[in-house]
Amino acid sequence: MTGPVHFADALISRIRVLQQPLCVGLDPHLALVPPVFRRGSMAPNDPATVEAVGEFLETVIDRLQDRVAVVKPQLSLFEQLGPAGLLLLQRLVQRARNRGLLVILDGKRGDIGSSAEGYAQAYLEPGAPFEADALTVHPYLGLETLEPYLQRCQYGRGVFTLVKTSNPGSGDLQDLQVGDVPVYEQLARGLGHACAGLCGPQTGFSALGVVVGATYPEPALRVRAALPKALFLVPGFGAQGASAKEAVRGFIAGPRGLEGGVVNSSRGVLFPQLQAEDAAHWEQAFDGALAAAIDVLGQAVVA
Amino acid sequence: MTGPVHFADALISRIRVLQQPLCVGLDPHLALVPPVFRRGSMAPNDPATVEAVGEFLETVIDRLQDRVAVVKPQLSLFEQLGPAGLLLLQRLVQRARNRGLLVILDGKRGDIGSSAEGYAQAYLEPGAPFEADALTVHPYLGLETLEPYLQRCQYGRGVFTLVKTSNPGSGDLQDLQVGDVPVYEQLARGLGHACAGLCGPQTGFSALGVVVGATYPEPALRVRAALPKALFLVPGFGAQGASAKEAVRGFIAGPRGLEGGVVNSSRGVLFPQLQAEDAAHWEQAFDGALAAAIDVLGQAVVA
Repeated sequence: MTGPVHFADALISRIRVLQQPLCVGLDPHLALVPPVFRRGSMAPNDPATVEAVGEFLETVIDRLQDRVAVVKPQLSLFEQLGPAGLLLLQRLVQRARNRGLLVILDGKRGDIGSSAEGYAQAYLEPGAPFEADALTVHPYLGLETLEPYLQRCQYGRGVFTLVKTSNPGSGDLQDLQVGDVPVYEQLARGLGHACAGLCGPQTGFSALGVVVGATYPEPALRVRAALPKALFLVPGFGAQGASAKEAVRGFIAGPRGLEGGVVNSSRGVLFPQLQAEDAAHWEQAFDGALAAAIDVLGQAVVA
Repeated sequence: MTGPVHFADALISRIRVLQQPLCVGLDPHLALVPPVFRRGSMAPNDPATVEAVGEFLETVIDRLQDRVAVVKPQLSLFEQLGPAGLLLLQRLVQRARNRGLLVILDGKRGDIGSSAEGYAQAYLEPGAPFEADALTVHPYLGLETLEPYLQRCQYGRGVFTLVKTSNPGSGDLQDLQVGDVPVYEQLARGLGHACAGLCGPQTGFSALGVVVGATYPEPALRVRAALPKALFLVPGFGAQGASAKEAVRGFIAGPRGLEGGVVNSSRGVLFPQLQAEDAAHWEQAFDGALAAAIDVLGQAVVA
């Protein structure tokens, strides 16, 4: 009997086949749902609207099958839809995993003791109500508070800790200087031991990953130096202004090009500029945006 | 026409009437639900169990009416119950507010841009699916990321930012020294401007509060010095080992004793040691635990 596949091995081996590290963010911004899918009032408390969002994202998931390795639902935008939104999240996560996509839940959770354990039970435990492959988490409460998530790596789960984020104000805390080292780098060093202890047998990458924004390529190099085996989850590519080359700055040479993480695009892929009026035009616009993101990232990782 | 009551004015004025700052944490630990309420398998995916948790917490809420100012549901333990748990959360928040209790959702949310906006829409917007009075948030992403929550203070909402938490490992990041000041104090100073700009007309306390653990009384004094008008949300009292005196260390003199925040007790009140077998005995045990917490905190705030 074999155990579950290690999260980093599963992710990296799919990326090697696809030869590109795109992660598609599933962000149901109600105002941006394409016309062909819109229904009801498009207000968060309208059941018809929640159904419309569901059909939109189900269609997206089905078109992503075999083309990307991983999707990343943004939990806040499902919570905004109330209990019905969480039912939808549950359905979409199951659908994506059934289609062979890995699912990183972008919940940025972080709490202590039995409350952290509750989040691990909700998202990472086998049979969990929102059972997914990985979860993003906050580090501010300290390294011991990551334990409940890390314990679930034995079930093939991954954990991505925020380290250096993509937003303009990320430096307020993350860049404070501790001696001659910024807080985010000190944090990366602190994660070193746990990260090194969770490496996959096939690829050597760790199930403990880090979130490092594409908009800060130089910090990405410092985090990589501190955590040679960490998977990077890189937001900030596309809509937030970073180039593909910047997005993969923290990647390292692998057998099929630069590797070591995933680069997320949410709006750039989900909501292409063209507001297509019918299903065929929407498919064309979506496939075009997806192909463009895949292409530019695929080129960026060519060694 | 008058606008909504400022969050800090609402909270502090109720606490002045009650003359004690107890906040009761609503933490549905399945293993600890009293025998008289237990039903079904007591597994998270059993609908009978979710109903049992609901009846337990409804009974608790009804008994807290007029005796405490505020309750604090722990979101992770509702998320652990899946979509049905979120439906239950919605019902309980409404019930508590209908009983005149203020509700602080302990979700420790934190994200950037439109994702942070999503959390504000989910929990703090008028008519939000989980409309509550306040939300706990993470500061690691920077001060700009608090804006969506702070904008909702105009609707009578409050925001509690993690600053110095109660857990043993809280120092990993929070105590890193930036020059001669720890990160948590630097953060408190950084919040100063926003905090001062959100003070209530009646009490002068701010709708931007901070989480400062009872287990670290000396840091509480440093945070208070940096943020004279901030409400403190103090975890760590009771089950986590801090005394009532330690818990109110960051409070300041007011017209009816020490004031300036709330002290949370979850397990100490919800789950008294006596595992009462019938409803009458459970009521007695619960009321006794509640009275004891109220009494010891009431004594601690006597000036």
